[in-house]
Amino acid sequence: MSLPEFEHIKLARLQSRVRPHLDAMQAALDRLTASDIALADEVGGHVRRGQGKLFRPTLLFLSAMNDGGVPAAAIEAAAAVELVHTATLVHDDFIDDAKTRRGLPTVNARYGPSTALIMGDLLYTRALQHLARLNLALPLQLMTDAAVLMSEAEIIQVQTRYRLDVDEETYLRIIYQKTASLIECACRIGASFLPDGAAVDGVFEQFGRQTGLVFQITDDIFDYLGDPRRLGKPTGRDWEEGRVTLPLIAAWREAGEADRRDLAALAGSRDPAARAASWPRVQAFVEAHRGVEYAYDRARRYGDEAKRALADLPDGPRRDLLRTAVEYVINRLN
Amino acid sequence: MSLPEFEHIKLARLQSRVRPHLDAMQAALDRLTASDIALADEVGGHVRRGQGKLFRPTLLFLSAMNDGGVPAAAIEAAAAVELVHTATLVHDDFIDDAKTRRGLPTVNARYGPSTALIMGDLLYTRALQHLARLNLALPLQLMTDAAVLMSEAEIIQVQTRYRLDVDEETYLRIIYQKTASLIECACRIGASFLPDGAAVDGVFEQFGRQTGLVFQITDDIFDYLGDPRRLGKPTGRDWEEGRVTLPLIAAWREAGEADRRDLAALAGSRDPAARAASWPRVQAFVEAHRGVEYAYDRARRYGDEAKRALADLPDGPRRDLLRTAVEYVINRLN
Repeated sequence: MSLPEFEHIKLARLQSRVRPHLDAMQAALDRLTASDIALADEVGGHVRRGQGKLFRPTLLFLSAMNDGGVPAAAIEAAAAVELVHTATLVHDDFIDDAKTRRGLPTVNARYGPSTALIMGDLLYTRALQHLARLNLALPLQLMTDAAVLMSEAEIIQVQTRYRLDVDEETYLRIIYQKTASLIECACRIGASFLPDGAAVDGVFEQFGRQTGLVFQITDDIFDYLGDPRRLGKPTGRDWEEGRVTLPLIAAWREAGEADRRDLAALAGSRDPAARAASWPRVQAFVEAHRGVEYAYDRARRYGDEAKRALADLPDGPRRDLLRTAVEYVINRLN
Repeated sequence: MSLPEFEHIKLARLQSRVRPHLDAMQAALDRLTASDIALADEVGGHVRRGQGKLFRPTLLFLSAMNDGGVPAAAIEAAAAVELVHTATLVHDDFIDDAKTRRGLPTVNARYGPSTALIMGDLLYTRALQHLARLNLALPLQLMTDAAVLMSEAEIIQVQTRYRLDVDEETYLRIIYQKTASLIECACRIGASFLPDGAAVDGVFEQFGRQTGLVFQITDDIFDYLGDPRRLGKPTGRDWEEGRVTLPLIAAWREAGEADRRDLAALAGSRDPAARAASWPRVQAFVEAHRGVEYAYDRARRYGDEAKRALADLPDGPRRDLLRTAVEYVINRLN
């Protein structure tokens, strides 16, 4: 059995515990992405076909579980979280000018920039409308907070693009806001449905935040190492598009002046072809200064913190499953 | 005194009745468009400098007024409505590739498409976050409903772009969703703060919707006649960009087969320069078949319906001011 298959089975086992909820959520998602407007319905279907692993709804349900069940409102809230995630991907793919996502053309590549912008807006607003109509006040607060943080992160990324002097603190702010905030939001929304939701909110905030940081750091490492789950997926996209992530930040910190000068010369170009051509030298730089090892170490520490946050929860299957979830994210790096 | 000056004074007189509320709202808007992120703060300032006439907040306050005062929450809700309006303009200017708005470069022209997309998202989500934090459940429902309708309208516009066979019903759906829905939303949010808010909701729904239709139809007429308030503003933008509006729809309905064939030949081109070159012939077509007269007649009828809706309100200054507001919109056409 290959590593990707093994990982897939681990996630599937985790999700089997919340399968009926995921299925019910899927029905809600189908409704929310359908439309009486032909073009919106078509793009909605395209987006559904490219759907991901449902990691955020899975965490939401694991957080909300009480004697194995979750309230009906949690199903609807999970659909809204996943829909917001989808909307951000549609907009991100426009910003990054990405051609494919999960083997399908992006909305931007297939339907053009105007439709990508509008469909992102439509999915975003549908998700928030759904929560508003159901009068889910606390989920709405958490979700709009996360939405603001995610938009801000995109602006910071535009502002710091191509800059080699991005420090670890700025990097952490970016990945917290763009990725961890929505994962934290999913966990807190889930926990808000528990009878003792307010009391354990801090646990889920910590758990979600740290898990989200691990999630993004591992993704950023994959861009250097290649992702074992997606063999053949090209590396170096972040470098090519001017995003400086933790492996490079750490390597830069360790490098001597001569090495830094060489790298700075490569970083001066904004031409994608030139940047792609310099990618092997960037990889060598990061390897020489052990940038991936540093990033991996940080990811493991955040993972440990996520598990430590769970210590304040009562013993039981929920705690075990959440621990498994964070181990799944860490072990993507094997 | 020129007509634009006269109109300006009429709006100013109307707004003098809600001036303290508009000023308080301006302070809220300044806070909501400021940011600790340099680029977001800069673009926020750019957007504030290009601010419009505050027509939606004015209507919201006129709807909310009770003995001349409005509750503090109405000020915050008005800021959110204006901010959503601003966000849609930032995205619209990207979709239309507009170069200037109110004498300033658009965000898209000045900062590029990625920043326009992200800043629109940020302003949108800040507005909704603001309502969610203040726990304004009903305004949030009304606002997210309007936001969905506005996004859908953009998709319908993409879908019907360049098509001469758009009928009046489709046109009315588009302008209701893209323009009237937010004006209706502003009026209903305002009225929701009244002690008898639920009882008069239907009045403000009707009033806001019809006023919004008048607003957009008059705007569409300006694109044929030129807008007397903005002398020298070029006409024909809608035609150039493939948007078929009421004057053309009405003229098309009246035209004979030969005239239609001539126009259809012009409409076949999607090249902006070719479309700009054919604009005088489109104007002549609309004039020959009295398209503007038809649109003007419809606008007046919707204006009458808006005023009729007010009949169900008690006598008093609020009713008079709302009547003046709809007359202001109609009289922009003089």
